[in-house]
Amino acid sequence: MLEPRIIEKLKQIIGADNTATERQDLLCYGYDATQMEFLPDVVVHPANADEVSQVLKLANAEKIPVFPRGAGSGFSGGALPKGGGIVLVTTRMNRIIRIDTDNLVAEVEPGVVTEQFQEAVEKLGLFYPPDPASLKFSTLGGNVAECAGGPRAVKYGVTKDFVMGLELVLPTGEIIRTGGETVKGVVGYDLTKLVCGSEGTLGVITRIIFKLLPYPDAKKTMLAVFDSIDGAATAVSTIIKGKIIPTTLEFMDHATIQCVDRRFNLGLPAEGRALLIIEVDGDRDLIEKQAGQIHDLIKPLGLVQFRVARDAAESEQLWKVRRLVSPSLRDVNPTKYNEDIVVPRSKVPDVIRRIEKIQQRYDIPIVNFGHAGDGNIHVNVMIDKEIPGMEEKAHEAIKEIFQAALDLGGTMSGEHGVGLSKAPYIPLELSPVQIATMKAIKGALDPNNILNPGKMFPE
Amino acid sequence: MLEPRIIEKLKQIIGADNTATERQDLLCYGYDATQMEFLPDVVVHPANADEVSQVLKLANAEKIPVFPRGAGSGFSGGALPKGGGIVLVTTRMNRIIRIDTDNLVAEVEPGVVTEQFQEAVEKLGLFYPPDPASLKFSTLGGNVAECAGGPRAVKYGVTKDFVMGLELVLPTGEIIRTGGETVKGVVGYDLTKLVCGSEGTLGVITRIIFKLLPYPDAKKTMLAVFDSIDGAATAVSTIIKGKIIPTTLEFMDHATIQCVDRRFNLGLPAEGRALLIIEVDGDRDLIEKQAGQIHDLIKPLGLVQFRVARDAAESEQLWKVRRLVSPSLRDVNPTKYNEDIVVPRSKVPDVIRRIEKIQQRYDIPIVNFGHAGDGNIHVNVMIDKEIPGMEEKAHEAIKEIFQAALDLGGTMSGEHGVGLSKAPYIPLELSPVQIATMKAIKGALDPNNILNPGKMFPE
Repeated sequence: MLEPRIIEKLKQIIGADNTATERQDLLCYGYDATQMEFLPDVVVHPANADEVSQVLKLANAEKIPVFPRGAGSGFSGGALPKGGGIVLVTTRMNRIIRIDTDNLVAEVEPGVVTEQFQEAVEKLGLFYPPDPASLKFSTLGGNVAECAGGPRAVKYGVTKDFVMGLELVLPTGEIIRTGGETVKGVVGYDLTKLVCGSEGTLGVITRIIFKLLPYPDAKKTMLAVFDSIDGAATAVSTIIKGKIIPTTLEFMDHATIQCVDRRFNLGLPAEGRALLIIEVDGDRDLIEKQAGQIHDLIKPLGLVQFRVARDAAESEQLWKVRRLVSPSLRDVNPTKYNEDIVVPRSKVPDVIRRIEKIQQRYDIPIVNFGHAGDGNIHVNVMIDKEIPGMEEKAHEAIKEIFQAALDLGGTMSGEHGVGLSKAPYIPLELSPVQIATMKAIKGALDPNNILNPGKMFPE
Repeated sequence: MLEPRIIEKLKQIIGADNTATERQDLLCYGYDATQMEFLPDVVVHPANADEVSQVLKLANAEKIPVFPRGAGSGFSGGALPKGGGIVLVTTRMNRIIRIDTDNLVAEVEPGVVTEQFQEAVEKLGLFYPPDPASLKFSTLGGNVAECAGGPRAVKYGVTKDFVMGLELVLPTGEIIRTGGETVKGVVGYDLTKLVCGSEGTLGVITRIIFKLLPYPDAKKTMLAVFDSIDGAATAVSTIIKGKIIPTTLEFMDHATIQCVDRRFNLGLPAEGRALLIIEVDGDRDLIEKQAGQIHDLIKPLGLVQFRVARDAAESEQLWKVRRLVSPSLRDVNPTKYNEDIVVPRSKVPDVIRRIEKIQQRYDIPIVNFGHAGDGNIHVNVMIDKEIPGMEEKAHEAIKEIFQAALDLGGTMSGEHGVGLSKAPYIPLELSPVQIATMKAIKGALDPNNILNPGKMFPE
């Protein structure tokens, strides 16, 4: 519980209307997309960097933890106020400041919703590629803090690859700019990229300068079903070696295909053991040619079905297969633990086989789909919390899944981050010296450990 | 001067053959591509991370500065042993460890020469795009430390965009791995990108994991001469807005054109005030189409000459114009100060006009060329040191050139870095809080300030 005088000071900084202490308000800012919940002491909605700065200076003076939060759509608890303190919500800072069509640069506030930004730039013929599944509600500030990915990362990269500069309120309350609006720039350390993916532990983002691209001329969607996981995985590297970098190379394993087809009856072939949704974009003539090339390249790899969308409506039909995955999963079990391991592209079949063994050993359904072009597999451990012991078993299984990814040269997380949920597993992936180095950087920027304490690193 | 017992210890670590203290050896490692020279106390050539680690541990114990060095081709003095100490040369660590054609990943030691690496991956049909002008002799470790760029950055990005992971010896001598070999990865802070461009102040790079691309199918080179700088600059943004991202968009101003044509008589039109060398790469049919589209797009912009290379020999002829710039410059004045400012792409004409005024005011020839697609202009201030006062005037002019770039939303350096030569100007670009933040990170990783002290930040 914070002393009333501190709440009073916060109200002076932010305004009483934008400072909430009622239980029903606090409840709304204590959860995210994980299964966890923690109650903050107070929720503030600052309007600008100056207000954020004042909150952080007060927090330092009074040693109160601060938890920055966008839309709260994160999968790792990065925004959760564990231990209580101040939740600092960025959603009032939601202006698109400018879109510069000459230099293909945009400047935004962190509270802008990802999809709204995409639509705004698309109206001007421009393109902001990162497309996390949460894009209809997640904020750009959250996307930067977590370094959000998405299906298009194969060709275009992740959020970090589009962040050119930031306005950042340091944990101490000082306001700095990082990076800039030039494509190149080597003056000083790259604080911009350091902050991307630092999960709100190194500063509060109050402005973002994004790089944009011209909107692609056209796109073409294909669906390819294979008689083995190896066929699908080989297809991925064969296409890329064939000098075609698709926009997306989305993967679904046998369990996922069965799940979707059982419920929605999409006519997927029974002998299909793995499926790819392939999309290419760019010049209209080129993508027609590439669709033919892709078919020729993957035909020998146990291809049992290949569909090419002739228009937007047919493309929508193919993507429907992918979009119906999440609703279908509920038929397996009510609760999903959604992990997002990554392995080198060629190791996808190996990791899937190891996960199949883990599934058999623990007798828990596991459904795998995701971004095969990046080797980024969403591993969904499906449990029923009503079944005694299943939750505990699931956590054991997840630990083994992480270890499998690491053994194959991968990482525990490609998109979701560490936050609270993966912090205990961090020593599996990072050495004591790596952790100490990162903590030293955190300590250098946040000497009082005010900002998002207890996140990312094990306590 | 180091005590003999320290030299002895170094010889025990590195071997006597790889530890040099003779004046003629020291001289060879005291210069770089700047005009500066400093004599080290000793030069060591370690063979691996373990030897580097032992050198750094000794340096910490004895408080001796260490200056990592690749080929010494840097333009900002980043490798120079100002104040004396140990120069640590990475060129013995020159193995290409592996090239993984399935995952498009390579692992190398830092001493590999850039061009040799490019040739090795090209033999396997792969592509490592970064192409600093120094690529025939610069090392990959130096490229990463300085975040080297090059003409192809327009389409492909700079060195940083290809670095996936590092083995790094921290200033304290501890060895860590950063990043990995997966395209995505969000576990912990991005130490990899922090080290890229940190100019050897945060660690010694002993391994690099690079991302590769498939080698492009074909390329097409064009030369376009315009009757104004505005025409050339508008051409750059018009092409990109036309949904074509060329591989290179190289720019030469009027003074540069005159310089080259006077000496080599290449038949450039007299009314040409600015020139672009445009190259596109990719699918063979597509680039043919793009060459036509580019011509249509830029024709209304005061185009006075447009040549398209029909084959590799003709392409070579067009590139010759660009390659003859450096040899031609010597006709202007014997010494060049080569700066590499960056401005947002659309501000190139503004910055060139401001530089023209600076040139008139100081009466020093200034020749501008560079990477217009990135807004990265190489500003060559041509002086004759024999003329009294010219050197001092040049430094004043350079300061004004930096200020012009900063006023237009740019940066002092896109490729060359800060090192020693730009450290005094850092406060023009970075605020005291930015500098303090970067120094805090340096202090966290290098508590004894052993590694490259006095670089990047003003003392």
